Amino acid sequence: MNTQDLTAIKQQCEQTRKAAKAIALANPTQKNAILFSMVKALIENKATILAANERDVEQAEKDGLSAAMIDRLTINLTGIEQMQKALAEVAELPDPLSEVLPMTKRPNGIKVRKKRIPLGVILMIYESRPNVTVEAAALALKSGNGIILRGGKEAFHSNQAIATCWQKALTDNGFHPAGITVLASTDRQLMNELLKLDELIDVVIPRGGEGLIRHVVANSHIPVIKHYKGVCHLYVDESADLPLALDLLINGKTQRPGVCNALEGLIVHQHIASAFLPEAASALQAKGVKLYGCSKTRQLLPEIEAADGDLFAKEFLALEISIVTVDSFDEAVEFIDQYGSGHTEVIATQSQDNAERFINEVDASVVMVNASSRFSDGGELGLGAEIGISTSKIHAYGPMGLESLTSQKFVVEGEGQIR
Amino acid sequence: MNTQDLTAIKQQCEQTRKAAKAIALANPTQKNAILFSMVKALIENKATILAANERDVEQAEKDGLSAAMIDRLTINLTGIEQMQKALAEVAELPDPLSEVLPMTKRPNGIKVRKKRIPLGVILMIYESRPNVTVEAAALALKSGNGIILRGGKEAFHSNQAIATCWQKALTDNGFHPAGITVLASTDRQLMNELLKLDELIDVVIPRGGEGLIRHVVANSHIPVIKHYKGVCHLYVDESADLPLALDLLINGKTQRPGVCNALEGLIVHQHIASAFLPEAASALQAKGVKLYGCSKTRQLLPEIEAADGDLFAKEFLALEISIVTVDSFDEAVEFIDQYGSGHTEVIATQSQDNAERFINEVDASVVMVNASSRFSDGGELGLGAEIGISTSKIHAYGPMGLESLTSQKFVVEGEGQIR
Repeated sequence: MNTQDLTAIKQQCEQTRKAAKAIALANPTQKNAILFSMVKALIENKATILAANERDVEQAEKDGLSAAMIDRLTINLTGIEQMQKALAEVAELPDPLSEVLPMTKRPNGIKVRKKRIPLGVILMIYESRPNVTVEAAALALKSGNGIILRGGKEAFHSNQAIATCWQKALTDNGFHPAGITVLASTDRQLMNELLKLDELIDVVIPRGGEGLIRHVVANSHIPVIKHYKGVCHLYVDESADLPLALDLLINGKTQRPGVCNALEGLIVHQHIASAFLPEAASALQAKGVKLYGCSKTRQLLPEIEAADGDLFAKEFLALEISIVTVDSFDEAVEFIDQYGSGHTEVIATQSQDNAERFINEVDASVVMVNASSRFSDGGELGLGAEIGISTSKIHAYGPMGLESLTSQKFVVEGEGQIR
Repeated sequence: MNTQDLTAIKQQCEQTRKAAKAIALANPTQKNAILFSMVKALIENKATILAANERDVEQAEKDGLSAAMIDRLTINLTGIEQMQKALAEVAELPDPLSEVLPMTKRPNGIKVRKKRIPLGVILMIYESRPNVTVEAAALALKSGNGIILRGGKEAFHSNQAIATCWQKALTDNGFHPAGITVLASTDRQLMNELLKLDELIDVVIPRGGEGLIRHVVANSHIPVIKHYKGVCHLYVDESADLPLALDLLINGKTQRPGVCNALEGLIVHQHIASAFLPEAASALQAKGVKLYGCSKTRQLLPEIEAADGDLFAKEFLALEISIVTVDSFDEAVEFIDQYGSGHTEVIATQSQDNAERFINEVDASVVMVNASSRFSDGGELGLGAEIGISTSKIHAYGPMGLESLTSQKFVVEGEGQIR
């Protein structure tokens, strides 16, 4: 990367910042009009998008990318329809900036209220999935923000084809195309420079592997909203309804094992271990799940492999699960504290006391009682759509909807009061 | 700094993290009991604190620190009483974790609500003022957090004397003293290592000069809540009530010029410039304020010094002000956009339209209509107490009260629902 590139990228960010000001002041109808223009642009340009995607997929195959990565990269006609559907769904959501917040009058007569505002400019850093180029931009736009999208080089042509559609959707509605900027460069050194532009960019949201996210955190001067991984557990309490617990276990582990809200660990209270574990193991194995267990667990399930600390902390994203048997409720909470990732933790229990203790004592962005970890998702929790998940507590914790792309400013109205 | 120091500091952070879990689960009465024990400890140990402070002040004088710095460092009997008062005021505030948030039932029957939780462990990095060691810790405690306080070396003995009081207050109430940890080391390299411990610390709040804050932002892997500086403006609109505008100007600039919500700039609409500026200049000069102006301003006030771009962006924190005359409302907003710091911006206007446009279009954490910038303060806005001010939009924007030291987790309760 040379100085010229850096100057060019700064200018692009400045343009996005300027364009974002117009988006921030756009009314809900104007913003939805852009979303519907984008639906139209996707339909009109689907052949171009599919051809661009084909180029990316061919290159990815040549480069020997994993089948899973190629799967996430590939767009077909159904994929384009899903993008259109996502746009329509975002358009239907209530406008987050229209919320009226309460006003208070201070003893000196000044009126104080808060007003919801966009964050400004969002930098999204992601890998593979070109649908992010549609969906993240739609959420940014709906919440009044500008967005800079920095996708992976494996999706370069697909992302550029989608960018052309966004540019048309914006200009057709009288907005500057820089409001949604898809970067042409996927250079990593350039990304590092971008991460220092905290006067131009308000927040960075990285989505991808833990390595990418840690790199962003270590190099960014801009606030980062992130989640490293989802190591979610089901704790089967001694008072659990065992058939219910088994349902949660099978659903959490096997319904879609490759996602972050899938279960990666099972914690069993020793008093119900012999009643629960053999049946649970058979049911998991019947679904093709490989089990690892602590020494106590292996007394009941001698045929399974031994689990150590590294496995307890591992996000398998596959049909594998680690099992630990604990002496007490307290030990279960401590285990989650040590190995959980702050994503989602579930208890199966019939004890109101233990349910309440679990809700209060377990440190995770989503704590659940007698429900599947798979509900830990913006759509399922009623947020409408999800820009990502935060496992740190600053700004947002857990699945993030439109509101997490906003902030609040104070508005003070007086009649000349002084201090 | 050697490996041994780093290991020791990590262990300290781990202890604070553990101690913070007990504070997070403490009820409001328990937390207030610690605050009142601290009031008692300050009274019992005031001679020790004053003697420790004397050592610091003597050293500061030897080291040639500025008078302003020594003033901020010095504690007298009144200062200790003010600390006691601050503790009692924090105790009186409503407990932020007691708030009950709304619950919704999803179509599948799961009940979803949010629950307010502490952030966990706060790292406070600050200079001079030893009262921060009392007040920041009180706010952290009240909101259920552990805190690590890293003060400046100039306040070392004062901070350690206050730390001893906190330790007594915590242990007297059955809490681990590590819940409020005042670091003994003020080594900068050690601070840089601390800033990488994002698994142990949830947020960093730096308070001090812009240099210190930029250093923290550039080196931290932990989220930072910060404000670089307060460059606040008063815009006198063409429709302003001029005597009212003059009150706001004099109050904002001169009532306490050394604080971040003091006015640093005056923006005047050209149509009222000749009616307003001469009188405003005389009133400011009568208070000893030095004026700088743009070329248009100097046509009316030829005797004042010329202002350039650097002066427009400067936080004087002194009896100095820069003045710009603008052609239009739009130019005023653009000027604020370019030179403001996102802190506080004020309009004096009698036009409802311009007031609304100012509220909507000006990007600042506090926007005010016809009120003094000096109200931009946690106490004045009704937040009760202030841990700091944020001029970036992530997590908190503007003066931060107890709520900004908390987050929210999702709580899901079901009866065995699966996906």
